[in-house]
Amino acid sequence: MQKKAYFQGDFGVELAEMAGKVNETLADVMGRGEDIHQELKYAMNYTLTAPGKRIRAAVVMWTCKVIAGQVTKAAQTAAAAVEMVHTYSLVHDDLPAMDDDDIRRGLATCHKEFGEAEAILTGDALLTMAFEILASDVEDDSTAKRMIVTLARAAGSTGMIAGQMADFKGEDTEGDLQLLEYIHTNKTAKMFAAATTMGGIAGGANDEQILKLYNFGLGIGLGFQIADDILDMSASSEDLGKTAGKDATAGKITYPSVVGLDKSKQILGKITEDAVAALEEFGPEADILRQLAVELLNRTR
Amino acid sequence: MQKKAYFQGDFGVELAEMAGKVNETLADVMGRGEDIHQELKYAMNYTLTAPGKRIRAAVVMWTCKVIAGQVTKAAQTAAAAVEMVHTYSLVHDDLPAMDDDDIRRGLATCHKEFGEAEAILTGDALLTMAFEILASDVEDDSTAKRMIVTLARAAGSTGMIAGQMADFKGEDTEGDLQLLEYIHTNKTAKMFAAATTMGGIAGGANDEQILKLYNFGLGIGLGFQIADDILDMSASSEDLGKTAGKDATAGKITYPSVVGLDKSKQILGKITEDAVAALEEFGPEADILRQLAVELLNRTR
Repeated sequence: MQKKAYFQGDFGVELAEMAGKVNETLADVMGRGEDIHQELKYAMNYTLTAPGKRIRAAVVMWTCKVIAGQVTKAAQTAAAAVEMVHTYSLVHDDLPAMDDDDIRRGLATCHKEFGEAEAILTGDALLTMAFEILASDVEDDSTAKRMIVTLARAAGSTGMIAGQMADFKGEDTEGDLQLLEYIHTNKTAKMFAAATTMGGIAGGANDEQILKLYNFGLGIGLGFQIADDILDMSASSEDLGKTAGKDATAGKITYPSVVGLDKSKQILGKITEDAVAALEEFGPEADILRQLAVELLNRTR
Repeated sequence: MQKKAYFQGDFGVELAEMAGKVNETLADVMGRGEDIHQELKYAMNYTLTAPGKRIRAAVVMWTCKVIAGQVTKAAQTAAAAVEMVHTYSLVHDDLPAMDDDDIRRGLATCHKEFGEAEAILTGDALLTMAFEILASDVEDDSTAKRMIVTLARAAGSTGMIAGQMADFKGEDTEGDLQLLEYIHTNKTAKMFAAATTMGGIAGGANDEQILKLYNFGLGIGLGFQIADDILDMSASSEDLGKTAGKDATAGKITYPSVVGLDKSKQILGKITEDAVAALEEFGPEADILRQLAVELLNRTR
């Protein structure tokens, strides 16, 4: 099947550019932190500079560009904050008491490299700093406040952490599709929705636009996770940069384990279609986001 | 030695009133969270409603009252946020990989009651929600933003987490006074300074006043921790509501272990005196804060 193309440029180059931008912002933010405890700073930098795809950060900046025609400074800060929260969630998720993982982004996980207490504290520090930079670096007070509410709700007890808890509790149960949707929506999709929403806020989107961007984010986030489930079954650890087949051996419920591989791919296709449809009003400026949806659908790592 | 009295009323009654106020705010905030994952919410409430003294929350509200003559709604939200951050720090601090404690606030620690993964997630959720309520419930945008920066800096990698990291790394080393000051200032005192600062911000204090309030908070915070070190040597677990003598057996450095008990008491006296002096300009309205300094100096639990 030929991959449908919306964006006329090179998607990989665009993504790399956004990754470069957020890496710069992260380096800038960490570079200012003279007072950060030395060993803590080292561990924070270790996790932040590990080679991640920076998809969530790119989503923030691309969405801002769709609305405002450019990547504003507030969008860059928001992208860094989203990346910090994502990284913290990986650090805590990998802990022995949680998923107990040894490899992440192709490197030893934080607790494997620095110890368990250090990894708990490193995650805590990244989460805290995400809110700090939004409050200190986003100039407009109201914009900062709205971004913080958006990020906290997506990352916290009504979002990502709820999904992690349900995921953990759902292990070794049979698991139906409803539970699985709850887990993936909360654990993954809401952070993507926060990314599009924060990008929209940075770009000055109106409420109606924000709602459409939110729905697009939720869709690609869910799609991203289903694609992840599918990949976890078929790819190698080397390709993934993390332990492959881990979910299945841990008894975690996944889309393939609940509805089978074919049906998973079918659901993924439908979700991608709906997500793209949510962007209808945004015209060709939004082609990069449409292309992202297609890339997630077809991703191999 | 007779305890010096600044405040003419009953300090215990005043503290109980403030504890009641923050408990109400916490219950209100948690009550609104219909979407919070059920088991997560239960664990969050378990840790939040455990019988704490609520000193940090009281400090926020008292400081606001000193400046504005009343406890504003923003101060109540700030008090709840500070209490959430304090509670999260206890939950993570008690984890097996950290201090490995079984009792807290007279109850089983969070991980003992619910499991380790659950405790990590519960702490993460409380930290995230602290920032959420500041951004959503403090009406004035600029006030909210300043409070979030203050809290994040005090709680994060330039504050509490730096102190926890240094504390952890400092275990089983001989430890000099400089390291000890670093640990206590970062781990404990900066959160007290954040409490007075946020109370000052809520009350509309000017920059000069904020600086004095900050210094007072830093002083009583350091005093609080030294008093804690002294108590840990002498009190029973029942009195403390947590495991007594734990720091000594864990090989942690404490004021008594570094400078001896007498010198510790002497330092504590001097710090309290300086803290009270920082409040000079605030007149009799600040007597409750002065009394707090004296109570901390003389506390038995």
